[in-house]
Amino acid sequence: MRAITRELAAFAVRSKFDDLPDIVRSEAARAFLNWMGCVFGGAREAAVDIAAAVALEAGAVPRASIIGRGERTDMASAAFVNCLSSSVLAFDDTHLATVTHPTGPVAAALFAFCEDHPIRGQDFVHALVLGMELECRLSNVLLLPPSRSNIGFYVTGLSGPIGTAVALGKLLNLDEQRMVWAIGLAAAQAAGFRVTHGTMASGFVPAQAARSGVSAALLAAKGFDCSDQVLEGPKGFLDVFSTGADLDRAADGLGERFETLSNAYKPYPCGIVIHPAIDACLEIAEQLPSDGKITQVRLKVHPLALTLTGRREPTTPLETQISLFHWAAAALRRRAAGLEEMQRTAIADPGIAGLRERIAADPEPALGRDEAIAEVMLADGGKFRSHVKNARGSLARPLTDDELDRKFISQVRSVLSPERTQDLLRRCRGIGEAADVGQDISSVWAG
Amino acid sequence: MRAITRELAAFAVRSKFDDLPDIVRSEAARAFLNWMGCVFGGAREAAVDIAAAVALEAGAVPRASIIGRGERTDMASAAFVNCLSSSVLAFDDTHLATVTHPTGPVAAALFAFCEDHPIRGQDFVHALVLGMELECRLSNVLLLPPSRSNIGFYVTGLSGPIGTAVALGKLLNLDEQRMVWAIGLAAAQAAGFRVTHGTMASGFVPAQAARSGVSAALLAAKGFDCSDQVLEGPKGFLDVFSTGADLDRAADGLGERFETLSNAYKPYPCGIVIHPAIDACLEIAEQLPSDGKITQVRLKVHPLALTLTGRREPTTPLETQISLFHWAAAALRRRAAGLEEMQRTAIADPGIAGLRERIAADPEPALGRDEAIAEVMLADGGKFRSHVKNARGSLARPLTDDELDRKFISQVRSVLSPERTQDLLRRCRGIGEAADVGQDISSVWAG
Repeated sequence: MRAITRELAAFAVRSKFDDLPDIVRSEAARAFLNWMGCVFGGAREAAVDIAAAVALEAGAVPRASIIGRGERTDMASAAFVNCLSSSVLAFDDTHLATVTHPTGPVAAALFAFCEDHPIRGQDFVHALVLGMELECRLSNVLLLPPSRSNIGFYVTGLSGPIGTAVALGKLLNLDEQRMVWAIGLAAAQAAGFRVTHGTMASGFVPAQAARSGVSAALLAAKGFDCSDQVLEGPKGFLDVFSTGADLDRAADGLGERFETLSNAYKPYPCGIVIHPAIDACLEIAEQLPSDGKITQVRLKVHPLALTLTGRREPTTPLETQISLFHWAAAALRRRAAGLEEMQRTAIADPGIAGLRERIAADPEPALGRDEAIAEVMLADGGKFRSHVKNARGSLARPLTDDELDRKFISQVRSVLSPERTQDLLRRCRGIGEAADVGQDISSVWAG
Repeated sequence: MRAITRELAAFAVRSKFDDLPDIVRSEAARAFLNWMGCVFGGAREAAVDIAAAVALEAGAVPRASIIGRGERTDMASAAFVNCLSSSVLAFDDTHLATVTHPTGPVAAALFAFCEDHPIRGQDFVHALVLGMELECRLSNVLLLPPSRSNIGFYVTGLSGPIGTAVALGKLLNLDEQRMVWAIGLAAAQAAGFRVTHGTMASGFVPAQAARSGVSAALLAAKGFDCSDQVLEGPKGFLDVFSTGADLDRAADGLGERFETLSNAYKPYPCGIVIHPAIDACLEIAEQLPSDGKITQVRLKVHPLALTLTGRREPTTPLETQISLFHWAAAALRRRAAGLEEMQRTAIADPGIAGLRERIAADPEPALGRDEAIAEVMLADGGKFRSHVKNARGSLARPLTDDELDRKFISQVRSVLSPERTQDLLRRCRGIGEAADVGQDISSVWAG
């Protein structure tokens, strides 16, 4: 059996920043920027209020920011809360092949560490890439053929702790054996399933992955040991979470092919499998006559869109994240699909609510995950059709730097002044050049 | 589909101490006594040194003891470390039908909470019973027919967080809805598999279950929400961890039949499935002539003994926990199977090491889990045979109160003075009558 636990550990330990192609470095900076924006966007949500309150009650020595809230706590708790903030609105990034959200746990752990340790920007970016890379590669092993994994597992919760532990382990300069243990201890905390989607507990799973990764790396750094074959061994990670997995997917081409380049940023705050349908409906909405009365909507979507987001009637803002029907209706009615469209007012809007009921959605296995077809029938016999082959924000149509900047600003400006928002944007964009990441970034809100 | 998440939550919320049969109350006190002894027994292990150091670095307000070490930390970390202490030597209790170790996570969380909140002994015992009960019942659902679960999962890590969250939730007076969420948040942290057995990471899984349960209960208490159907819903706990599970096992006879009464205490510090073979070898050892030269040993054991503990050559003390061969050899050579027999000196003892190689062990499906047959052949043609139908410490042959006391004393006396050891023993035995559990117990070592 291929010793992938050790192979992955050895790769992470030996990898050097200079080995990373420029495009990977700049994609990691984009991922970090998108992440930081999402942290601010979610930082005032009720779920985060609670998580921050529980963390603060432990009364730890404050070493890391609870971002966007002016509070500070210990590293593990900060990683937990900040990842929750970035995840809670389902606006975070996605490795579409596996629907993993790679940046949240890793970036949250690394940033919390950096606030208490001087870490150069390039070392931060390097660790972030390693963490995202292993996370996405393990998600590939778990979910891509020939693996037969239960779609119910929330894969970010399975691979997230491992990527996080490896990334933090890199900053802690773990040797190969300790990196093996860090992977093992993280894998032993792999957890989470999708029945919780649409509740606060959905963002909780990546948040917990962040905390688990921190714990694994800190324990391994001091010599807390573990089996050397946690990933591949019998009764181990892949044995229990996947059947028939192809181990080679984890390690083949490591350092040459980068899954980090297959990461995508969401233009809309909901499950990514909903996005192509939103695009199709937005396209049609632009063409609809203002007095057009919609009698029926037909969607054709990738089957996963219905599996993961088939809720017809959301009752809370968080439930909209798993309601394909809500977002299609909102896009048609409001010609928009932003944070406004997940509010209670939008859920209860009679125009949107009535339309949700008149949408038929069929799974179409021949479509890609970023593809959808929408047809809208009007009372006057008018018909509109849109076929979106690649959703906005997909790998074929990635958000531009400008679009990412606008997304960032739209989320941060509700917390920081316009000047500080611009300052933070600039520093996040330039994270790779920072002399001391924690100081450089947190000075924006601490100053 | 039966709404067992809500059923279990409702049961826990409505249950009253007066509803518990006397025998269940006294069994819970025995479980607590055994647990506290095991905490002291493991408190000076290297794994615990590391876990305590990581916890103390966070610098939380000290509200709970790291038992047996004179240190104090926050509730969640204390629960984690104390459960690790109780688990690390594999001397903790076992629900044999599922090989769950029920008391560790629950008792560790409850005790840490009690040190900072005045809780009466009967409320502590009540919460402990509820936690153990739900834990063992969910383990039954996961593992007993018709379920087809992967034996690789470490079931204490799956059901442990849930039992812990419910027990702590009871002390927090959660209402039914919040108890539903506590169950859900705990289940979303269900984690762990058996490839880590025989390393520090083996005790880590129950320890992490304790921490997860604490986190779930504290978040739910403040209104952190979750799906209402985490256990039974599609893409939920049972969907991903078990196939074909019988939901009724979770809730049928709740409050009437108590799984807590099917909990057993180990006389030997190793995997419980090894115990009947140890008994058989000890029996034979008593009869062997002092100059008898053993040429061969044949064991017949329940198949699970080889699946879980088939390591022939342990290289570390923790690896002996999964080595049927080591313990059979040690029992024959030393006529003993205690903490001494897991030390490096015992592993390297030529008499034991040589004998490990001459043991053949065959799985025999017709045997019970607490049953084993040993045959020993001597060079002079002598033959000895022992058939143990129920191992010491099994449900059919439970440890007596006196035996539990001796086990407790043997573990605590290495840390506390003989007087304090006796004082602690007395207070643990009488836990149900304490006016304030945390004060009453911790005064023994704090005074």
